Amino acid sequence: MKPIGEIIKEKPWVGWVLFFGTMVIVFLLGLLASTIVERRAEAVFAYTPQVEHEQWEPRLEVWGMNFPRQYETYLQTADTTFESKYYGARKIDMLAEYPELVLLWAGYAFSMDYRQGRGHMHAVDDVRQTLRIGSPLKPEENMQPGTCWTCKSPDVPRLMKEMGIAEFYASTVSELGPEVVNPIGCADCHDAKTMQLQITRPGLIEAFQRQGKDVAKATHQEMRSLVCAQCHVEYYFKGEGKYLTFPWDKGFSMEDMEAYYDEINFSDWTHKLSRAPMIKAQHPDYEIFRFGVHYDRGVSCADCHMPYKSQGGVKFTNHHIQSPLNDVANTCGVCHREDAAKMVQNVYQRQDALHQTRTLLEETLAKAHIEAKYAWDNGAKESQMMRALKLIRGAQWRWDYVAASHGASFHAPFESARVIGLGLEMAQEARIEITRVMAGMGYADPIPMPDISTKAKAQEFIGLDMKTLNAKKKVFLETAVPQWLKEAQEREAQYPTKNI
Amino acid sequence: MKPIGEIIKEKPWVGWVLFFGTMVIVFLLGLLASTIVERRAEAVFAYTPQVEHEQWEPRLEVWGMNFPRQYETYLQTADTTFESKYYGARKIDMLAEYPELVLLWAGYAFSMDYRQGRGHMHAVDDVRQTLRIGSPLKPEENMQPGTCWTCKSPDVPRLMKEMGIAEFYASTVSELGPEVVNPIGCADCHDAKTMQLQITRPGLIEAFQRQGKDVAKATHQEMRSLVCAQCHVEYYFKGEGKYLTFPWDKGFSMEDMEAYYDEINFSDWTHKLSRAPMIKAQHPDYEIFRFGVHYDRGVSCADCHMPYKSQGGVKFTNHHIQSPLNDVANTCGVCHREDAAKMVQNVYQRQDALHQTRTLLEETLAKAHIEAKYAWDNGAKESQMMRALKLIRGAQWRWDYVAASHGASFHAPFESARVIGLGLEMAQEARIEITRVMAGMGYADPIPMPDISTKAKAQEFIGLDMKTLNAKKKVFLETAVPQWLKEAQEREAQYPTKNI
Repeated sequence: MKPIGEIIKEKPWVGWVLFFGTMVIVFLLGLLASTIVERRAEAVFAYTPQVEHEQWEPRLEVWGMNFPRQYETYLQTADTTFESKYYGARKIDMLAEYPELVLLWAGYAFSMDYRQGRGHMHAVDDVRQTLRIGSPLKPEENMQPGTCWTCKSPDVPRLMKEMGIAEFYASTVSELGPEVVNPIGCADCHDAKTMQLQITRPGLIEAFQRQGKDVAKATHQEMRSLVCAQCHVEYYFKGEGKYLTFPWDKGFSMEDMEAYYDEINFSDWTHKLSRAPMIKAQHPDYEIFRFGVHYDRGVSCADCHMPYKSQGGVKFTNHHIQSPLNDVANTCGVCHREDAAKMVQNVYQRQDALHQTRTLLEETLAKAHIEAKYAWDNGAKESQMMRALKLIRGAQWRWDYVAASHGASFHAPFESARVIGLGLEMAQEARIEITRVMAGMGYADPIPMPDISTKAKAQEFIGLDMKTLNAKKKVFLETAVPQWLKEAQEREAQYPTKNI
Repeated sequence: MKPIGEIIKEKPWVGWVLFFGTMVIVFLLGLLASTIVERRAEAVFAYTPQVEHEQWEPRLEVWGMNFPRQYETYLQTADTTFESKYYGARKIDMLAEYPELVLLWAGYAFSMDYRQGRGHMHAVDDVRQTLRIGSPLKPEENMQPGTCWTCKSPDVPRLMKEMGIAEFYASTVSELGPEVVNPIGCADCHDAKTMQLQITRPGLIEAFQRQGKDVAKATHQEMRSLVCAQCHVEYYFKGEGKYLTFPWDKGFSMEDMEAYYDEINFSDWTHKLSRAPMIKAQHPDYEIFRFGVHYDRGVSCADCHMPYKSQGGVKFTNHHIQSPLNDVANTCGVCHREDAAKMVQNVYQRQDALHQTRTLLEETLAKAHIEAKYAWDNGAKESQMMRALKLIRGAQWRWDYVAASHGASFHAPFESARVIGLGLEMAQEARIEITRVMAGMGYADPIPMPDISTKAKAQEFIGLDMKTLNAKKKVFLETAVPQWLKEAQEREAQYPTKNI
């Protein structure tokens, strides 16, 4: 082949083609470079702080000025339109859906009111609205300690700093009412200076310490689960001071935590019907998650509930914390190549199957409580009932470990099914025991069951005066809460922030 | 830049470098081509038929002459050294491991003898050795029909062709003893001319027909499971003719097959202790597999139990059918990037968890049978016992659907746990019912439990004379079986094969 110079000499148009071709390529490269610079500029602009504030600053909108993308997406947790098959973000009345729950919690505040929580933005409001905190207009009317607020607001780390941790827990709901007003937010998980994830709740830090571990040494990926595990865990109110404590000293399994509670002879309440010493599981989400394959493979909570998102040149964590089923492409889709509909179907299959055995256990437990009451009513002695009551306690703990855990049927379907299976065996064993007690009193028929087919009937059966409770709540929401909000507004108006 | 010709004129060594460089590259290309040709030649050589034979040819070694790699690897299924945590290839005596099983099967042949099956090469021998077929020296001593041989040998399609299908089933074990001598082999799954996979057993073909489907239309990937599903399924012996039938008409789930059996009022036997009308699950491996994520993602049995293997230039299916845990790199490793030890651990976790609830259900069922017997012994009436017996039947079916299924804890751990959970509830409900029956007779104490802590004690409790049974088996193995083998040898010596 001839040198290019000679070719151009013979056919000058070849030279022009090369010249203009090169021009076009260089022009396109210029365009590309411009886009990169622009996107980079966007990214730099996005992270330019607008305001300086303290770590304890509880207001989301103040932190939000510096991180508008995170703030804006976080605000979307107020949305209540998404509805999954069983666990919608709508405020489902669980007692109306499953009236047996009223019986299972007889003598405990959950029997009055248990609604599916809404998104994080509603955390404080949902607490005010629930009957479970009562309707305290005067200090002595409180039925719950300050501990109840622990997970609800970035006002909590502020208050713990001001009051002391033990003092915070030992206070009352109404005492802290005017103080805890901002819903779960930035300061709960982030360092104000570096924006690094951080643990702000003593419960998790102390649980790690008792296990001989230092939570400060967790990796970033671990922190993407641990900031959630500050709250999405099993815990109990320890002693007179209602000190919030994680029962993790023996481990995370249903058996480990039961052994912990049994060892200290703990019970949340004595069941009103069966008189069994009960444990109420809170929401051992993180614990059950640890038994699933996603945890095993190193996936964090944020990977699925707060996936990465791009806007212009900026990649950031989507703070619209929600069910991954609402955003399959950016969550499951990162690792799994199946299409979204298929994966949603896979999750529903697991939910369906666990729903079946879980509700069966609910019905069985309701029977056990009713039958135990019948035995007491017919003169059973404590010595006769001891074994049955211990079995009821254990069976309901097994049920609640799974039922109270958000997303258990996805996070660890197999472990959940195992635990529910054990619960079924145990609840039935309690009923065998009670049947024998009744046999000893000459009674051989099936024990009659009350009509608890609706929430109202079940609540009436366990002796709740819902009319009075609801009326009191109305007064509380119309008088106490507005007063709390007014005090909070005046207080927050004094908070220092500095524009920069 | 100057044309290359000018550069070479100025610096002649540049020309030599280009020359020798090109030489080296061309030489390497030659080497590569040679390897490809050689590997291809090997592949062609490997598939050159050595012998011509008929489709019905039952002898593995004849087919093996044409397909030495498949044959040689298949021979390795004779190996019994691999041992997984629970389900080794060794011939584990399950009744010794779990003496409750003796009770669960009282009145049924499984209570005499139930050993973990060995590899496919032992299929015929394992049948001869088990007490479950009895020790028939004379025709009238048979306790099992010809149907028992259905899955054990490529002599079966040969015999079905010669005798007729219904006649095959309606014969006896000893009648077919001299005929069924080659262990499961090539002709069971392959077409002799094309080596395509094919279904040779009527049970599967007929089950598909009743579902309105044509098994001949299955894809190759489906066939890589369906050839296994000819045998690794739930089935029963229908009617007087003991016609082998799959109970799939309503579907594959535990509930679907139970509904099928209930509708036709089928029971395999009446339990000797409880008098419950029992169903014995065979090995619903394929059915349970359909509820797992691997089936859902299109994985076939062969993908994990018969992975591809390379030898020289030949890629072939490894016919050493075995636990994938023995070859993780070539099975799990094809899709999953975790290391082998991790994946084995994941499987063991599932086995452990299911083992816990499954054995709990075994203990519970044993109690239910014993308590039912106690009720009968104390004069319970049939009308009183009806509900308990129905519950026992259902609970044991739930247990057996999972327990009899090979690898259920891996194939579909969640579905298995669901079914076991339901079984636990149901078995306990049966015990509640019996407790009430006893209460009606003025009895309130726990029903005394016999010592069934060993296989021998359990077998004695249900009234088995193992000494006599074992002695008869010894005579049978020493007299009848050698005679069968002699007859078979003489017959096979007449078989036509043609070297080519």
